[in-house]
Amino acid sequence: MRSYSSLRLAAFGVTLFAAAALPALFAQSAGERPAITPEIRSEMERVLKAAMAGDYAYQQLRHLCNNIGPRLAGSPQAQFAAEYVGAEMRKLGLEVTLEKTKVPHWVRGVETAALTDYPGQAPGTTQKIFLTALGGSVGTPPEGITADVVVVRNYAELDRLGRAGVAGKIVLYNVPFDKRLTAQNEPGPAYGEVVAYRDRGAKAAEAFGAVAALVRSAGGADYRLPHTGEMSDAGIPGAAVSAEDSELIADLAAQGRVRMHLLLTCQTLPDVESANMIADLKGREHPEQVVIVSGHLDSWDLGTGAIDDGAGVAMAMATAAIFHQLGIRPRRTLRVIAWMDEEHKQSGSRAYAADYAPEFPNHVGAIESDFGVGHPLGFYVAAGPAALEELAPVADVLHATGAHLLRPIEFSPGTDIAPLHSAHVPLFGLMQDGRTYFDYHHSAADTFDKIDPLTLRENVAAMAVLATALTEMEKPLPR
Amino acid sequence: MRSYSSLRLAAFGVTLFAAAALPALFAQSAGERPAITPEIRSEMERVLKAAMAGDYAYQQLRHLCNNIGPRLAGSPQAQFAAEYVGAEMRKLGLEVTLEKTKVPHWVRGVETAALTDYPGQAPGTTQKIFLTALGGSVGTPPEGITADVVVVRNYAELDRLGRAGVAGKIVLYNVPFDKRLTAQNEPGPAYGEVVAYRDRGAKAAEAFGAVAALVRSAGGADYRLPHTGEMSDAGIPGAAVSAEDSELIADLAAQGRVRMHLLLTCQTLPDVESANMIADLKGREHPEQVVIVSGHLDSWDLGTGAIDDGAGVAMAMATAAIFHQLGIRPRRTLRVIAWMDEEHKQSGSRAYAADYAPEFPNHVGAIESDFGVGHPLGFYVAAGPAALEELAPVADVLHATGAHLLRPIEFSPGTDIAPLHSAHVPLFGLMQDGRTYFDYHHSAADTFDKIDPLTLRENVAAMAVLATALTEMEKPLPR
Repeated sequence: MRSYSSLRLAAFGVTLFAAAALPALFAQSAGERPAITPEIRSEMERVLKAAMAGDYAYQQLRHLCNNIGPRLAGSPQAQFAAEYVGAEMRKLGLEVTLEKTKVPHWVRGVETAALTDYPGQAPGTTQKIFLTALGGSVGTPPEGITADVVVVRNYAELDRLGRAGVAGKIVLYNVPFDKRLTAQNEPGPAYGEVVAYRDRGAKAAEAFGAVAALVRSAGGADYRLPHTGEMSDAGIPGAAVSAEDSELIADLAAQGRVRMHLLLTCQTLPDVESANMIADLKGREHPEQVVIVSGHLDSWDLGTGAIDDGAGVAMAMATAAIFHQLGIRPRRTLRVIAWMDEEHKQSGSRAYAADYAPEFPNHVGAIESDFGVGHPLGFYVAAGPAALEELAPVADVLHATGAHLLRPIEFSPGTDIAPLHSAHVPLFGLMQDGRTYFDYHHSAADTFDKIDPLTLRENVAAMAVLATALTEMEKPLPR
Repeated sequence: MRSYSSLRLAAFGVTLFAAAALPALFAQSAGERPAITPEIRSEMERVLKAAMAGDYAYQQLRHLCNNIGPRLAGSPQAQFAAEYVGAEMRKLGLEVTLEKTKVPHWVRGVETAALTDYPGQAPGTTQKIFLTALGGSVGTPPEGITADVVVVRNYAELDRLGRAGVAGKIVLYNVPFDKRLTAQNEPGPAYGEVVAYRDRGAKAAEAFGAVAALVRSAGGADYRLPHTGEMSDAGIPGAAVSAEDSELIADLAAQGRVRMHLLLTCQTLPDVESANMIADLKGREHPEQVVIVSGHLDSWDLGTGAIDDGAGVAMAMATAAIFHQLGIRPRRTLRVIAWMDEEHKQSGSRAYAADYAPEFPNHVGAIESDFGVGHPLGFYVAAGPAALEELAPVADVLHATGAHLLRPIEFSPGTDIAPLHSAHVPLFGLMQDGRTYFDYHHSAADTFDKIDPLTLRENVAAMAVLATALTEMEKPLPR
């Protein structure tokens, strides 16, 4: 998960909307046949039970993380993973397409940094700085950059320093991640505040003649982890330092001159061909009507992309596996998508929009999970109030796992499914407990061991039950 | 803190001994003058108040960590730090000696590892492994080692594999740190279990012909942190992998062959001269009688040694600063010691024992803090029951900060002061809440930001109040 629009989703702490209460509010007209019939509801109960008993998602996620490893868009692992997921879907009888898309091919290389001059230092010594290049960053010259560091807390301070204070220097944006918001289950605004600097900080510093830009990592833990993420194109390198190192540099710079040596050999190679993995379980009555279940297959390269977002892919795969296990051939087509290149440029999402736009009127719903594997609370829903009313039985069935909240929102609840929003396709984003999500997000610590099997099952259950409803209901949701 | 004997101290969860209750148990004989008079108790109250109001320790610790940085024994930073602390103590009017001691000079160098072959890997790719060399390890050959990895859970499994299963391979001891014990405030046994492999694992593997030994890091957090620490001499390299990487390798090895490339350029250079920093505030009545307040100045090189153990040094320095601030010239000599080389070979502690043994009969007490900067609960006390009785007013005064527990133990409560144990010097170790200590210990995340100013003050108060009692009481504690 990268984009700021998705982040605002996380601000769900206070105004949660309990869809379980809906039946009372929107009592159905007497005699009208409900969109979700008792028979469909019974199918949803079977799906829930299978999801809570299975470990298909867990084993698939383990393979993606442990056996394949990091899956940066453009890397051999990402391509291999798309082929792997396609092969697994074929095993379940789905029709698989690897939809081609050109993706950026950025590679990290070596990254080292050290403070070479600072107040009170022991003669002849330096201090290592923990940092990692931001996605898309240019590298330093081969010998690195050695320059004074200037620390600012926001863009206003940068502007006040101007060219006189910034030219020839390395700018550090020491913008803390607000842990108080995280503790209140409001990590989105905390993340967004910092990402404003991760995204555009280098460009803003470059405008004043800076030679590199550093941003304090957007992360909530205190284990000296740098958190990477995409930055907007700039002519100077951008990197994220750990919170600890940001504090260290800020402390020393407040005492006197701080000089740093920075070496980054990251570079952007020519675009490479990659693919969205698209697997269809064709509908028995309306094969032309499509319900998407999805996550993004690419990850950052530091960890192995368990929470961001191998888990989302594994949930979507597991939805197909449960249908297969229970012999469900749905009324409409269930489409599993493992999106490519969410983290860099959303090339996969844009390719899908270009290739499938004519079919969007027949896309009756799209689900994405891209906020980790915390306990699921329900869904963000970008659809009309009538859709919420019709989906009340989904909330009822998921009440058993605590994932019964349907929260209406005005924007897309997922980055990859966002192009479907303007076509008024009903969109759904899994709403997880996100209190620890940004502790691991985009860092080396996003690894398979972070997955709790039971909580993953709850997430699978949420996605699969909603997918059952959307593929089976009597008529598509109102748009 | 490194040694296993100290670790057992941490097992204080259940049997805490409330010294505050002692006055009732050991009622003083009528008419006998107490060792701690009301006047001395009043002085202790003044010291407590000053400790809770001051930030001397915080500022000194900040300087040690941020301005001087990591202080590995044998490094220029460690030596510079000893001189710095000495200069600071001279500013307070103390007599400073830099007691010479030869220390090992081990240097880390480059350390990289990657899995090159494993089940299910994407063709042409590898997976980075997060590890760090153990202190004292030999390096690999310059081109590194490439070998199959064999995973064991304990020495019994290693023995069962024998030479046939181990020769030519890299052994990984996948021994988990037991977080359940940590949660119960019993981290010592959890640490000791793993350290048995960190310490002797390489030697044991070498005996079966292994080419390197890896141990799962002894740490409780899940942020892909390797935790270093000293290992016993061996002819093959030893390194600690992060818990995540240990799990990853174990998972892959259970599926098939796992091959790793390992490069460590660490080496041991000739011993260098270093020093314990010893600063005396001479006693007004009994200058020959000595009370030690201490921590160890050397740290591991990954972090900046805030919790291990810059904090202990800062508490000892602050004790002298408080005496200076309040104009206290104690009855006996207050001796601040910043020990050198606790982490490697305890050279500083042994040098002190060699140089000062004739004066041990006049050492009336020694305090060390080396278990971090969690909330202080009181002291481990290696002294007779009569000593506990006499010290009841210390517990009374410290009750205000919650540091009122005096727990009798049979061994030294600190590594550096251990040589004084056989001379029956009453020994005291600060007993901190250690539940998070091993999350950061010996890792890159042991940095200044981990220090809570208020909690550090509570620790200073505990050390300084006890030091006031020991330096002022009517007669030395019974031995």
